[in-house]
Amino acid sequence: MKVPTAADPKDDHSTNNNSNSNSNGNINNCRGGDNMCKTIEVAVLDHRELSPHPVALSPPSGDEPHYIPPLNFAMVDNGIFRSGFPDSANFSFIQSLGLRSIICLCPEPYPETNMEFLKSNGIKLFQFGIEGYKEPFVNIPEDTIREALKVVIDVRNHPVLIHCKRGKHRTGCLVGCLRKLQRWCLSSVFDEYQRFAAAKARVSDQRFMELFDISSFKNIPLSFSCSKR
Amino acid sequence: MKVPTAADPKDDHSTNNNSNSNSNGNINNCRGGDNMCKTIEVAVLDHRELSPHPVALSPPSGDEPHYIPPLNFAMVDNGIFRSGFPDSANFSFIQSLGLRSIICLCPEPYPETNMEFLKSNGIKLFQFGIEGYKEPFVNIPEDTIREALKVVIDVRNHPVLIHCKRGKHRTGCLVGCLRKLQRWCLSSVFDEYQRFAAAKARVSDQRFMELFDISSFKNIPLSFSCSKR
Repeated sequence: MKVPTAADPKDDHSTNNNSNSNSNGNINNCRGGDNMCKTIEVAVLDHRELSPHPVALSPPSGDEPHYIPPLNFAMVDNGIFRSGFPDSANFSFIQSLGLRSIICLCPEPYPETNMEFLKSNGIKLFQFGIEGYKEPFVNIPEDTIREALKVVIDVRNHPVLIHCKRGKHRTGCLVGCLRKLQRWCLSSVFDEYQRFAAAKARVSDQRFMELFDISSFKNIPLSFSCSKR
Repeated sequence: MKVPTAADPKDDHSTNNNSNSNSNGNINNCRGGDNMCKTIEVAVLDHRELSPHPVALSPPSGDEPHYIPPLNFAMVDNGIFRSGFPDSANFSFIQSLGLRSIICLCPEPYPETNMEFLKSNGIKLFQFGIEGYKEPFVNIPEDTIREALKVVIDVRNHPVLIHCKRGKHRTGCLVGCLRKLQRWCLSSVFDEYQRFAAAKARVSDQRFMELFDISSFKNIPLSFSCSKR
């Protein structure tokens, strides 16, 4: 199965030709025509009607450990999670979260196994293609993070899992911008970023978060926030 | 104000004489007579009737950063948070969480400023005195963690903040035991522990979590868990 990818403006590998629905889902462009993000409706399902375990993964049995959260998994806020790239070993755990959507920040085509899992569980995919640059060739695209942030704070997408490859840099930047919206002081934003990035923390990512302008979000109510419980 | 402390059986500094109510609250012993934990009802308030900002802390104004989460703050699960020891700089943020209770894992008397904050906000304090040992003199008391875990998973106490001094070892062990209850595999439990403990991670803490027996919790429904959303 060819999986449609988010078309990053700078990503020549992505295709802009798969804008029609295919047997696996409907593709919608989030914004007018710039292809910053493509969403993939993997199945037409009313999520509220799904049973907790809609597909036939082995249910928990006995007292043995069962759940394998993805690398760097954590809860960000009510209905918002973060992690590294999930693989099939993590599917039982992810299923237990009852997700409505996943935000993937990697530009590569979403793996077929993961697409099948999303389809079986009625999880919508928002893919924002951000290259996993390495310093000093760093360029977190502000507009893309801004669009992704709109998806994050839209409670209609909750529960949502944000992930990139390792859950450190791209995910860390997006969560850091969310924390700015939640009016955390910058040192706390950096503290959280560094907890996940650890030895791989980047000054450039922290500069990006510091300079990220949240004024355009002024009119968006943050009802999702733990500060509004 | 003399603040009653949790009386750790091994803690000669704590007092066992303040089991009566005082002007600042009612002290109840969680268990029969072993003083493993004392709870301090700082005020008789129906928490549901509290306004989001019941005391006169400066409300957020303008677009400036406002919230200063405590050191190592994070969301553990729905209604469960963790952190290092909060001080007055963190009170605005903590207030925004709408806490019903705090679990303190330190044996020292709870600071008067913090007690006043709890009183003003109708937050109940559960104090379990666990000494902050340093390796190789490590002795996380299993029974105390077990009692604290019962408080953690009781939704009547949610939202609850678990804290010790730095939010690394004692808090990390308690959260790790919760993850075992949630049937996380041990490598994921350790991964989370290490994220907070970082360079201070202790093999002895991880051994404690590995050996912690959850069989006595078999009959407690984990309705609080993100795995039961």
